Amino acid sequence: MEDFKVIEVKRSIFEDNDADAQKLREELRTEGTFLLNLMSSPGAGKTTTLKRTIEILKDEMKIGVMEADIDSDVDAKAVAETGVRAIQIHTGGMCHLDADMTRQGIRELETKDLDLVVLENVGNLVCPAEFDTGSTKNAMILSVPEGDDKPLKYPLMFSICDVVLINKCDTLCVFDDFSKESVKERILKLNPKAEVIYISAKTGEGFEEWIQWIRREIKAYRT
Amino acid sequence: MEDFKVIEVKRSIFEDNDADAQKLREELRTEGTFLLNLMSSPGAGKTTTLKRTIEILKDEMKIGVMEADIDSDVDAKAVAETGVRAIQIHTGGMCHLDADMTRQGIRELETKDLDLVVLENVGNLVCPAEFDTGSTKNAMILSVPEGDDKPLKYPLMFSICDVVLINKCDTLCVFDDFSKESVKERILKLNPKAEVIYISAKTGEGFEEWIQWIRREIKAYRT
Repeated sequence: MEDFKVIEVKRSIFEDNDADAQKLREELRTEGTFLLNLMSSPGAGKTTTLKRTIEILKDEMKIGVMEADIDSDVDAKAVAETGVRAIQIHTGGMCHLDADMTRQGIRELETKDLDLVVLENVGNLVCPAEFDTGSTKNAMILSVPEGDDKPLKYPLMFSICDVVLINKCDTLCVFDDFSKESVKERILKLNPKAEVIYISAKTGEGFEEWIQWIRREIKAYRT
Repeated sequence: MEDFKVIEVKRSIFEDNDADAQKLREELRTEGTFLLNLMSSPGAGKTTTLKRTIEILKDEMKIGVMEADIDSDVDAKAVAETGVRAIQIHTGGMCHLDADMTRQGIRELETKDLDLVVLENVGNLVCPAEFDTGSTKNAMILSVPEGDDKPLKYPLMFSICDVVLINKCDTLCVFDDFSKESVKERILKLNPKAEVIYISAKTGEGFEEWIQWIRREIKAYRT
């Protein structure tokens, strides 16, 4: 028996995604669900970060996860192993999720009793930035091996995120041309309100700050 | 004075991109230009690989480069420094290039006297796989830090490539959960004809094999 569902979402019929995203945000607000939209390039460490985050938080809040992928269900499997409620969303080749596709996932996951729902978006720095999913907050992960010039090349993604996690900081020894200062400067130039947190999902470095960010945002959302 | 042009390409007016790509391929064939479409995730090392490739080949063939990006011209600057003809293509927010956008770049670059033209596509494992650019061959780079499970998650990209470069092999010491054997097995399962070459654009490891692949393909194209 599988311990997670796999659903195929349909492309939205709504022409105005922004209006639909706003509507979804209000629906989630009514049921008190905090939806975190987690984005990154392929292989930046979304699933590993999420697994460690769940391990730390699962005893203090009820968590659900929607794993979006073009294909495969390796991520939903990995997340379901942590014991939280998880579903795999297949986008049917689509490179992003819009608000209605997110809603289809939310309905399948059944989120009313959950404190935190994480949507792990398709690994892509371009398209997901253009479609508001209706999330409460947007988070992105940039990994050290990708380079500190990424804010220059994918400015929209860095502009729409509330928090940017710089992951794989344990590999700074081999990626010695990556400047923690330059990347932060470039991010803040695009988005002065962004929170920038340096982490390693492998070693746990920086997770106190990241976990505090989640706790603080959920608390603020509820009051 | 800039030593490369920056052009803004327009979205194609052609409904049938596949037919248009075939047409562009024939146009390039007539003028004898070999077009290599180079794809990868953001930060997998397209530009660094390209710079080292150019340094090795520039005395034996005439090379031109089209750098496609949502924004910025850092890559065209870096490539122009090697002395080859380069242009920067801005996609106007688009996450990929189609055949007509590629043609607009080809015209600006003026390719008739060139032996090898490289299109560095937008950093994205999803959308560029869906749009035939009219290229002679497709190459992609997967970097070790992204993980060996990527063929499972982005199968179309791995299916359409003639050659897959596994880059940043110098970092296998810190990414010790990456299996060179597993990644190759997964790629060949999707695409039995794909050539898989392990490289490090930083150290030069594996470049003999990669350069031989280019020489062989260009020679075969001409005969």
